[in-house]
Order: sequence, then structure tokens, then C-alpha cells
Amino acid sequence: VIERVYKLHGFVPLETPSMENLSVLLGKYGEEGDQLVYRLLHRGDKLNRALESEGINENDLAELGMRYDLTVPLARVVAQHRNDLPRYFKRYQIQPVWRADRPAKGRFREFFQCDADITGTVSLMAEADVLNAVATILNELGFKNCQLDLNHRGLLRGMILAAEIDVELEGTTLTALDKLDKIGEEGVVDEMQEKGISKESAQKLLSLAGGSAGASDEEILARLRSEIREGEGAEALDDLENLLHLCSDTPAGNMLTLAPQLARGLSYYTGPIFEITSSDFRGSLGGGGRYDNLIGMFGKQQIPAVGFSIGLERILLLMDDLGLYPDIEACAQVLICSLKGTPLGGVISLAGQLRQRGIAVEIYPDQHKLGRQIGYADEGRIPFVIIVGEEEI
Amino acid sequence: VIERVYKLHGFVPLETPSMENLSVLLGKYGEEGDQLVYRLLHRGDKLNRALESEGINENDLAELGMRYDLTVPLARVVAQHRNDLPRYFKRYQIQPVWRADRPAKGRFREFFQCDADITGTVSLMAEADVLNAVATILNELGFKNCQLDLNHRGLLRGMILAAEIDVELEGTTLTALDKLDKIGEEGVVDEMQEKGISKESAQKLLSLAGGSAGASDEEILARLRSEIREGEGAEALDDLENLLHLCSDTPAGNMLTLAPQLARGLSYYTGPIFEITSSDFRGSLGGGGRYDNLIGMFGKQQIPAVGFSIGLERILLLMDDLGLYPDIEACAQVLICSLKGTPLGGVISLAGQLRQRGIAVEIYPDQHKLGRQIGYADEGRIPFVIIVGEEEI
Repeated sequence: VIERVYKLHGFVPLETPSMENLSVLLGKYGEEGDQLVYRLLHRGDKLNRALESEGINENDLAELGMRYDLTVPLARVVAQHRNDLPRYFKRYQIQPVWRADRPAKGRFREFFQCDADITGTVSLMAEADVLNAVATILNELGFKNCQLDLNHRGLLRGMILAAEIDVELEGTTLTALDKLDKIGEEGVVDEMQEKGISKESAQKLLSLAGGSAGASDEEILARLRSEIREGEGAEALDDLENLLHLCSDTPAGNMLTLAPQLARGLSYYTGPIFEITSSDFRGSLGGGGRYDNLIGMFGKQQIPAVGFSIGLERILLLMDDLGLYPDIEACAQVLICSLKGTPLGGVISLAGQLRQRGIAVEIYPDQHKLGRQIGYADEGRIPFVIIVGEEEI
Repeated sequence: VIERVYKLHGFVPLETPSMENLSVLLGKYGEEGDQLVYRLLHRGDKLNRALESEGINENDLAELGMRYDLTVPLARVVAQHRNDLPRYFKRYQIQPVWRADRPAKGRFREFFQCDADITGTVSLMAEADVLNAVATILNELGFKNCQLDLNHRGLLRGMILAAEIDVELEGTTLTALDKLDKIGEEGVVDEMQEKGISKESAQKLLSLAGGSAGASDEEILARLRSEIREGEGAEALDDLENLLHLCSDTPAGNMLTLAPQLARGLSYYTGPIFEITSSDFRGSLGGGGRYDNLIGMFGKQQIPAVGFSIGLERILLLMDDLGLYPDIEACAQVLICSLKGTPLGGVISLAGQLRQRGIAVEIYPDQHKLGRQIGYADEGRIPFVIIVGEEEI
């Protein structure tokens, strides 16, 4: 479903290597992210030289890391191959990523991301297109209670300014705010104070970002406009209003909800940010946003981009919880059982004839008692058996 | 094609983690293989403790490695979950593996293997089934000049015995023999002598294994039977004869060719071994064999098994060389171009209606000059454009 819908929206497939230079990966995901990158140990002479030197540290032992997400590799590819790519590169990518995180329900150290990104335009049409693809996927998979939380890094910056927090502390502030779901308002205020933000500013930020329960998008926009009247924050409010309007008549329209407290953990976002949440699931099922400065980190040219990433395993867990899976069918439709003494060449040739007609066939390889052979078909939920002996062949 | 044919033959899909404990991986691929396993550097406290200790070596720095093939992980899974698996576990697996080898044409450090294996039986029906699946795949992909080289580890052991080579040197002997294609007879004799095998024995082995050019399978069998009259070697000759007979009337029948010099690099094989070669390609496109002692290395129970692995990238390279690819189609069938001032909500809603009808649509996100928009469709080989303005919407 995911692949088909991405293709319907004009995205083309890309795969990138599992390993990237550490210099590509590090510094893109925030400090906590960098710690979770798997590193590949040097080998041979390089390792020996490192081990012989004094005061070895981590950086002497590895120069390659495992892919941590699909966005940074895309940015690297676009920067590297920009002359061979179309002006707008719409790519989807479904591949595993690795994070050395503490495993938990829905949090794996190896998991698949399903990304769709558009590079080359600052038009909000790109946001709308990506959000529609994701909303269509959630609908087609049968989810009823999903919503697409929407915020804007520019609005967050405006709120940080309005709360009189030092802009230098923006990253720290967003990291704390990102934990609101997990540690609550008090926890966030405590963490911000630890990082050198005054209690007053922390509370001001939370009252700006929060307090939207039950309010409509229009009410939230109006409240924030009254507090943030100029600069990046006000422009962000225009973007959000335009984007909501663009999507109003589309699959994404019904799911989009303004969420001024949404921060997103990754540090490369610059504009609108999104996250899939569901009242049936604790945590996010996917997310994304605009990152206009990332591709420029790998080349001379700044190329704007926006994308979305769906977490495959979480989607599968939730589908399982909600009973949205179709029944899994046994692969083989027929098991061929043969009696003792049946010429085996004949059994193989019979299987070949059925397979040529598109019927999935398993051959019982040993000439055990018939009951045991039929029992095997039962256990494997293979619906038909063919029983052959010398005569039938 | 590969997946469909494997399913037709009754194989079910399996995926395993990219990372395995090094204890699972090492000691299964031969000494040269062990050197090529990618190892993942410890992190955090574990790494700090290792770096603080004196005389650190490789083994203090890593306990996880990247998957090197799909056979060893399968064996680990079957040993670990044998109580939950059917008596015959027929699984296919299409996943990447990693080898820190020197890259070359058709040799990548990350590449996909497409494996099909049957565990739980010593019947040659399993060999025949796997070989037929592979032969069918090669036929359906359009290859005309492929053959399936067939040999037997038991026959190799018989020949080693007949050549009066110390059985202790079996692994070394096979490693040298495996290089026959690359370094020629003289090179193999030289390498064997370096490893402590007499020139006479080395030459005897090569005359037993080689000298089959132009000979039919029957002639090769007859020649070897006259030299190897008893023991494991003679039993292996029976197996080979039976297997050739079993397959005579099947897709594999036309491709199978006895190749007594075929050794296969991996150390876990115990019975028949196979390799796909093509007069259009230098090197092997895939291979496999029986490995009756591998699963027992991970559990208490010895479970026999046989399997085949197709190298995806090599298949793709060869298809490309032979022009066997269908034309690649652009993902989008239609590009929607909009004139300046066209309401963007209307454009998005039009795209949504077309996509609901199954038409892949790309939206040109900026309202550039029309010529530029149509040029973009041309470059991307998108066959249709829809041009809309305020009126059309």
C-alpha cells in the first residue's frame, strides 16, 4: 500500500548504501542522536595502527556508520548528484535504519522507514503533496483514529523569542519540549531550568505552546497571532494558515491539527513539521517536515526540501492490535504426497506441470506413512493434497 | 520473478536481523571469510572499559557483526526456533549481506542474496526442488547460456584421499582448488605446495578433478568410478548419479553439468554443491549446496539442510549487459502544470481525483512559465501534461 500510494503521487524509488561516512551522519540528529549511531570497527592495518597509538578514542577506531535515517542519505545523494537529478526530485525510499537505542515496544534497533521527499522547491504545494500521500496511506491501511499534528520551526522560534529565552538555547529548549508527552509540563520546566532557562520563561513558553486542548485550528491561530505579531513567528503562522487552507479539500485535510507544542527531535528541520499520532497508539507513527539547509551541508548549493517518514514496524504493531491484517495464507496451495515406491522423477515432473500453471506446490520429500504426510499439510494449513503412487504416476 | 518462483515452489519468506553475534558468524566461512566480516564497535561504558584496559585487541572492541550470508542466520534461526517450525522448513530470504572485500565489477561490499533452503530432510528431492526453482528463475529472466555446475563434497574428499593428501589439509586444499578459474592449474599446484602438499599429490588431485572438458556426465561418472571404488567418494558418486536422474526431466535437467573441480569457498558444505555459471559472465552468479552439520552448531539437534543463493547484483549486471531489461518507465503518467494565479487548492484536488482513479500524477509545484513546466515533463519522460488555469479549475 505504501509503495503504491507513493508511486501514485509521482515519487520514484531510491536505495542508498547501509553504511555512510561518519562525517555524513554526525551533527545532523542532535547530540542524543549522535550517540545512537552504530559505528563499524576499522579492520586490518588501519585497526592495528590505531591500536598501537596512545590514548586511543572512538574516532580512531571507525570512520563508517550505519544509516540512522533516510533523510540525511537523501540529502547527501542530492548534493552529490544534483546535476543528474530533475529540478524537483520526488523520491520514496523504504529501507532499514539502525539506532543503538534502548529497545521497547515499537522501538527496535533495526527498523524500516518509508520516506517520501520532494527537493527543489519552497512551495507549500510540496508539503501538501507529501501530507496527502501519507493521509491516503493511513486511510487505505484502514486506520480510523489517526491525526497529523502540524507545527512550524519558525513558530517555535517565535514562541522562544516571546518567552524571552536565549536563542542560543533553541536546540536545548526543543529537546526538552519534545519530551512533553513523556515527562509532563513540570518535567519539561525542570529540564529547562537545569539547562539555564528561567522558570518564568519556561512557563511562558509552555503556556504559548500548550493550552490548545479543545480549541479549533482557527482559535489557536488567532490566539498565537495576538501574541506573536511580527518576524519569523508571524510568517510561520501565515505558512500554517496557507497550508491548512491548501489541504482543506484533500485526504490530509481531515487529519491535520495544529499542535504548537510539537517540537520533533531531529535538528535539521527549518519550516513546517508533522507527526502522525493516533488515540490507539502511544508515541508517533511517523513524522517529517521541511529542511531547507541540510542538502547545502553536503555541497555548495542550498536546495530546499520537505519530506515525511512512516515507521513501518509501528504501523504493523498497530494494525496487529486493531486486527487490520488480512489472514496470512500458507504459501503452498497443494502438497504432493507420494506412497512408498513411487518413482520420484514422476513426482517432480508433476510438481513442475502444476507450477507452470501458476499453482504453488510443495513436495513432501520423504516417503513417510501417508497419515504423517497429510498431518504435515494440516499443520501448514495447505488446503489441498495430491496423493500419488506408482500407478498414478 | 525470483520471489514469485520461490513461492510457486512452496518456499515461505523469512527476514533476519542485519546484525548477529560475532560468535554466530565466525568460524563458518573459512579463515578468509572471517577476515571480511564487518564488526560493530562497542559504545558507551563497554567501549570505555575496553579502551582503558591494556593490550586491547579486536575482540575486546566488538561483539556484533554484520550478516555475511543468509545461510548461517537461517541455521541459527532453525536451531533456536526448531519447536515452532514445520518438520521441513522451506524458506526464501532476499536481503542484503555485507563483506569487507575489495570491490570490483560484480563484487560489492553490500549486496543482495536471494536464498531458498529446505531444512529437515536428507532426501535428494530437496536438492532437486531447490535446483528446479533456480533453473526456472534463470529461464524466466531470459538467460540462455547458464549452466548449473554440480559436484559433491564427499567426492572431493574421495579425490583428496585418492591423491594421498592428508585429510587434515582438506580445507586448505579446497580453498586452493576454488581458485582454479582465477590462477590456473600451475597456480593451484604452487599454492598447494606452499601449504605442505606434495607436487605429485596436487597434480594427481587436479587430474582427478579436471580433464573433463568435452566429456559427458556419464563419461565423467565412469572415469571417477574407476578411480574411486569405495567409501564416501563412491557414495557421493551414487548421489550425483541419482540427482542427475531425478532432474533429467525438469528445468534443472538441461542446465546441470558435472564439474568435479568445483569446490565452493564456504566451509559448511557437506554433500552436493552447486554453482551457476554462464559463458556470458566471468565468475559465479550464485551457488549452494547441502550443509548437514551447520544447524547443529547452534543447538543440540543436528538438522540436515540444503539451499541455494542467487547473487542479485550479478544477475542485474548480466541482464543489463545482455539487454534483458524492459524499458524503465517514469513513475508519473501525468504532470499537472498550472498557470500563474491558478488556485492551488483546485490543482491539488484535481490531482487527488486522478490518483483515486489509479493514475500516477505529479504536480509541478511552482507556477513557472509554461514552457519550463512542459520541458520538465519531457526531461522526466512523463507522457502527458494537464494544463490548468483559473478558468479550467
